[in-house]
This record gives sequence, structure tokens and C-alpha cells, in this order.
Amino acid sequence: MYTERKPIKINEAVEAVLQFAKEGELEYVSINDSDGRILKQPIKADHDIPPFDRSPLDGFAIRSEDTVDASRETPIELEVIETVGAGAIAKRVPKQGQVIRIMTGAEMPEGTDAIVMFELTKEIERDGKTFIELKRSFKPGDNISFKAEETKTDDILVEAGRKVDPGVKALLATFGYNKVPVGKKPIIGVYATGTELLDVEEPLEPGKIRNSNSYMITSQILKAGAVPKYYGKLVDDFDRCYEAVVNALDEVDVLITTGGVSVGDFDYLPAIYEKLGANVLFNKIAMRPGSVTTVAEYKGKLLFGLSGNPSACYVGFELLTRPWVQLYLGNPKPHLQKVQGILKADFPKPNPFVRFIRSKMTIEEGKIFAEPVGLDKSGVVTSLANSDALVVLPGGTRGFKKGDVVDVLLLNGEGSSEILEK
Amino acid sequence: MYTERKPIKINEAVEAVLQFAKEGELEYVSINDSDGRILKQPIKADHDIPPFDRSPLDGFAIRSEDTVDASRETPIELEVIETVGAGAIAKRVPKQGQVIRIMTGAEMPEGTDAIVMFELTKEIERDGKTFIELKRSFKPGDNISFKAEETKTDDILVEAGRKVDPGVKALLATFGYNKVPVGKKPIIGVYATGTELLDVEEPLEPGKIRNSNSYMITSQILKAGAVPKYYGKLVDDFDRCYEAVVNALDEVDVLITTGGVSVGDFDYLPAIYEKLGANVLFNKIAMRPGSVTTVAEYKGKLLFGLSGNPSACYVGFELLTRPWVQLYLGNPKPHLQKVQGILKADFPKPNPFVRFIRSKMTIEEGKIFAEPVGLDKSGVVTSLANSDALVVLPGGTRGFKKGDVVDVLLLNGEGSSEILEK
Repeated sequence: MYTERKPIKINEAVEAVLQFAKEGELEYVSINDSDGRILKQPIKADHDIPPFDRSPLDGFAIRSEDTVDASRETPIELEVIETVGAGAIAKRVPKQGQVIRIMTGAEMPEGTDAIVMFELTKEIERDGKTFIELKRSFKPGDNISFKAEETKTDDILVEAGRKVDPGVKALLATFGYNKVPVGKKPIIGVYATGTELLDVEEPLEPGKIRNSNSYMITSQILKAGAVPKYYGKLVDDFDRCYEAVVNALDEVDVLITTGGVSVGDFDYLPAIYEKLGANVLFNKIAMRPGSVTTVAEYKGKLLFGLSGNPSACYVGFELLTRPWVQLYLGNPKPHLQKVQGILKADFPKPNPFVRFIRSKMTIEEGKIFAEPVGLDKSGVVTSLANSDALVVLPGGTRGFKKGDVVDVLLLNGEGSSEILEK
Repeated sequence: MYTERKPIKINEAVEAVLQFAKEGELEYVSINDSDGRILKQPIKADHDIPPFDRSPLDGFAIRSEDTVDASRETPIELEVIETVGAGAIAKRVPKQGQVIRIMTGAEMPEGTDAIVMFELTKEIERDGKTFIELKRSFKPGDNISFKAEETKTDDILVEAGRKVDPGVKALLATFGYNKVPVGKKPIIGVYATGTELLDVEEPLEPGKIRNSNSYMITSQILKAGAVPKYYGKLVDDFDRCYEAVVNALDEVDVLITTGGVSVGDFDYLPAIYEKLGANVLFNKIAMRPGSVTTVAEYKGKLLFGLSGNPSACYVGFELLTRPWVQLYLGNPKPHLQKVQGILKADFPKPNPFVRFIRSKMTIEEGKIFAEPVGLDKSGVVTSLANSDALVVLPGGTRGFKKGDVVDVLLLNGEGSSEILEK
């Protein structure tokens, strides 16, 4: 039976969902397994960088006072008494006229106060001793990397909420984070609905199509940093569906269903929410695609009833589920990054409701452009695979022209703390 | 002993490396494990989309000829004789005045040629039968999604070389790719050099620092899509170093060493290349940082001798090793994506050689900006963690001002088929 639903705005929907945001626990993982995880604590320096005065190059550690009279006309000779490599400590203390050969990264030997690079010296062997010839003077401190000049103990180097990437991992290693405090991943259950759905390995049958949404959503869940748990298809029987949903809810932090939220006779989800006694936050959003997207809450857990339409399903996850996941992980920028871009093609359709168009972003001459993909019917399928952005066209607008400036949500961007404007 | 080296240009270095590019084998992985992998074959439609004429909404399948006289003033009644859900096939064929209730995605029943959505009908129960009232006429084909209107069998939907993301995965599922043909990941060995290096779990000692490069490189290798194999530190003994390198070469596709390529007394790599009889492609690049970056080839395998300086090590991997990995995987866009951006800060230093500055990219009002990070000494460490781009300043230039337009290499971009200009 067709029932009127009251649509709410997408921002209201996002806010309704995030009222049930909760931050997940902290867990420690080995630094070797930390790639892509979200830091739950800032990275703090456990020591100064450099940890000691050191040589930034391969050369000789000298007493600068010995070089005061050195010049091109009056070169001086200094005796090399020891060689010290990085990681070693010089054993001797140079006296007047003596130097220590030193490698990049080695600690400044006691009694020395400047470094001369190899290239400025000439080595001389004489009487079984090694000397260097110098043709210029040096000042105390020349070419030394001083203790703590880069970073001091207890400095905060990376804030909590950042994702571990190669540079962050370098800092974790530098500061001894053998175990890394990260946000525990939420478990997201996925149920597909629809008797028309075949699994990927099944041959095609009349009237049926392959289930693509579950694979797509699983991939979106992984990309968002959570753990997908795919339960298969809900069968075409209300009582068994109800039981399946109740059982899954025990095992997951969030449950996603794809399909079954529209007004069809076999769209069981609304009735399941009702029988559960779940709190339906909304069952219609004034947007395209995905207007039937429904979210309900039951004992603090969210049930995302995403549309069975692939584009709507995709958009519903990115706009509603992903921010919940990001906050759970501890990312303070849970929303898709929004930038301005220039439309690369006309979009003549009117937009009675806000529209999210799967698009391909390009950068040309330092400017962002976005081209809707799949505008014609033949592009519907490939638009799934060729998008890295969503063009946002506000509701109540009449069509847009190539060259118009529009909002663009980046699907691979760094995230934003702002939701779409109210 | 200091030896003069002949620097080559970065583009020449990249070209020299890619002369030894080879494409890795194809392997099949389960669709469930395909996220982030590079497709080795295009995705081809194994059937039409839609596979049959179908209803795109919940409503009634009608014979349009029955509605010719329907209007607001003269509504008509049609009898509902069956309900067909998605995935099912109608059992009956409507005769004049009869319709079939149909759900989204269901195949068009025989004898019907248009769909009427629920919202345009009024249902009437009478004499144990169900009728709908219609107040307008419909034309043949109204609201039908026709077979093959989106995609035809054998259409190529995604080219080889693309990375599997949620949208690509949806297509893989749609077209029955239970096993996905992807590029086999190369194995990249990593050896650190330097007696000054402590492992991440070791306490600090005088004169020593923690090994951050190995963790950083391992993370870069993972991000590039390859398999890192970390061998630990090369010990401070030439013969044992040599043996370690020889043994590792047997087990990997590429061997990276960090450090040990400069002119220090314990920089063994040049001598190891020599003893191996390896073909040293270059041992100096006219760039900052990373001028000592060395690459050698031995029996078709590349040995990347990256600098021990963390920034130089990072840049060396991204510019030289990563493209080799991408070509191995089958990505036709192996290089970092290059865009133009606006400098957000002065960079007063002269650039005798091309300079790659770790930078943070932002997008403001649709334009790309890049701000160098770690310009002062106190930023050296954090610059590792806060960069997502490299600003490129050409050699032979005298300093740049805030607002200048510069080339920017994106560290998280989609890739490019072009190397830096010659």
C-alpha cells in the first residue's frame, strides 16, 4: 500500500544520524599493522631531535679556534686522530691542531665545535699520519645540527584523528611507538534484500540480476576503515527476515540493508523497524538519488536502510554511514570534503530536490572541474566505476550550464568537519 | 675518499630506471579480496543491462491501449490480476482491461507495454476483486527500462590498469567476476644501513637514533600496491653486507637500501655494486633532496640506493621506485599526478638544482594551493607527516614568492602517464 512519507533535508538527516555517534574504543596495534588506521592519541616526541649535537655531513670535526689563521694563501694542516661513524662515539678528545674524521649523523666529539665537509679539504699522508689541509677559517657552530633544533621532548607532532600514512609512520618509528594507539574498527553488517538478486558466481536467470550492491557497500565499508560482515540475502519471508535482522544486530555495531525500504509489496524493512520497536529517524530524504533512504535506531544501534538502486545506495552510504564510521574511529573530519568546481557539461534537468551527481573530477591549470558521468541512460552502469566526486546541485534550481561553479564532494578527499550547508 | 660523481637530470634518471620496467604476471583473486588491486584486463559486460525490459518503479504493468480514453473527467478502472515481485516472472497474460501489480526491477509481463506508478492510481476493492482507477492515458514504452539500454553484451566498461574501488567492484559483481584478473604484486626488499639506527622498540642510546626510514618505505611500498619484505639493518662489515644483498636479491623483484650511498667511510653500497658487477645507472641526480640517490641493475633486477635522509628517501621512492611498481602492476599512469598550484608562502632560497619540497595541498574557491611544510629547521621532522604534495621548483631559479604558480606533484592523486618535463 502506498503511504505518504515526510521528507526531511539531507543535513537534518545527517544530524539525526550523528546524534547517535559514539566514539569507539582505543586499541593498540603493532606499528607494522598501523597503515591506514586512525590515531587515537597525538604523536608526542619522546626525545629531542636531534637527540644530540651531530654532524649533518661527512667530513671532519674540528676545533674552530685552530682555523683562525687559515686562508687560501696560508693553508693550515690538521692531524686526523680518529674516525667516528654514525652511531659510534669518539674515543679521543682532539688537542690543538687535531681533528676527528666524522660521518653524517655521528655525535659531535668532545672538544670540537664545527664541521668541515670533505670537499673543502685535501688529505695528506706523512710519517704514517694523516693530515688535512684547510684553506679557510670556521666559526664555532659551523655545520652542526644542534640538539633539539628540530623538535623538543614532549612536542606534539601529529594530532589525534590523523590517518597513518608513510610520513606519519616515520614519526611513529622515530618516537618509539612500537605499539600504536588507534581507533578500534566498528563492525558493519550488510544484508541485501531482493529475490531478484543472484550471487556473483551464479549464472544469470530470467528476471534476475546479480547482486552488486553488497560488493560495492563492502568495498565502501573497507575504504571507510570499518570491518564489513556480509550476511547474504534476506529471504522473501517476513518472519525469517525479522529474525535475521534481530540476530545480526547482536553481532554488529551498525546494520546496513540494501533495498526493501521503498513502497513495494516485498519491502519489509519498514515493518521490521515497526515490529522491533525501533526509532525511525526518517524514512524519506528530499534528495536525488536515494529519497527512500531510511535510518532507524534500536538500543543505540543504527540500522541504515539504503536504497536498492546502486547510485542511491552509494550516495546514502557516503553521506550518512561514512561520517558515523569516521567519528567512531576518532576522525574529527567525518564528512566528505567539499570544494568548488566548474561544471564541464550542461545539466539541463530541473532539480526539485538537492541532487548528488556522480562525477569525475579533473584539475586543469590549477582549477577544479567536475564532469557528471552517466547522464544518459547508457552511462548508468559505468557511472558506478568512473566517479571520484559528487556534484551537488541545490534543490529548487532549474538546470545548470557548462562553466557554472558548483559544490563538489570529493570521494577520495581528506575529509571535512562541516556537513553540507543548512 | 671523496670521489666526483656526474649528476644526471631527474627525468633522465626516471627514464633510466624505466628501461628496466617489466609487467608482472596476471593472477586471479576472489572479488572479496580485490579492493585496491589493479585490473589486468578490462571489465566486459557478460550480458545486457538491463538484461530484460523491466519496471523501474513500484506500480502496475498495463496495456497502454486500454488507457486511451482515460482522463480526469473520465477515469477508467482496470482489474489487478496478479502481483509480480522483482526476480519473479508473471504467470498470467493480461487481457483487455487487466493489469499486473509489479515491483521495481521485475521483468515486464507478457502483453504489457507501460508502467503506471502507484502514486497515480487509486485502488478499489469490489466483489473480491481489486481494481485501480486511472485518470490519464499512457503511451507504449512509458516508464519501461528497456533491455540493453544501459549496456550491451561485450561492451568494455572499465579499462585494464584501473584500481578496484567500490564502483569498480560493483561492476565486477554485476558482470560475474567471481575471480578478478589483477596484477601480481612485486616483492620489494628493504635493507636499512647505519650502525646509528635503533629499532623502534629499543631504548635510545648515546649517538644513536631510531630507524624511521624502513617503516616509512614499508608504508610507501604498501601504498604503491607492492609487498614489502624488510630484512633489517645491514651490519657494519663489507663482506657480510655483500652477502646479505646477494641473498636478498634472490628473493625479491626489487631491492631498496636506505643510506650507505653517500661518500662516508661506511657507505658500502657503491663498493657492493662494484663487486656484484652491477650496472650503475646513475649515482647522482641534480636535485634536492636526494642528490646521492643511486640505482643499479643486476641481472634485470633493480637496486635502489636511496638516501638515508628521510625526505630524500621519501622523494626518491616516489619519483623512481613507485613508477616501476605501477608499471609492474599494469597501471598505465605510473607517475605522480602533476598539477599547477599557487604557492602559499615565499620560498626565498635559490634552487641551483630542481627542488622537491614537501608541501600541504589545499583547495580554496576551486583553486589548488600548496604550502611548503618544514621550511625552518623545526619543521624537518613534522614535514614528514604533514605533506600530501611535492612542490617542484625548477633548477636555475632564484627563489619564489607567495602567489607564484608552481608545479605540484600529488602524493595521493590518481597518477599520470607523463614524467616531469625534460
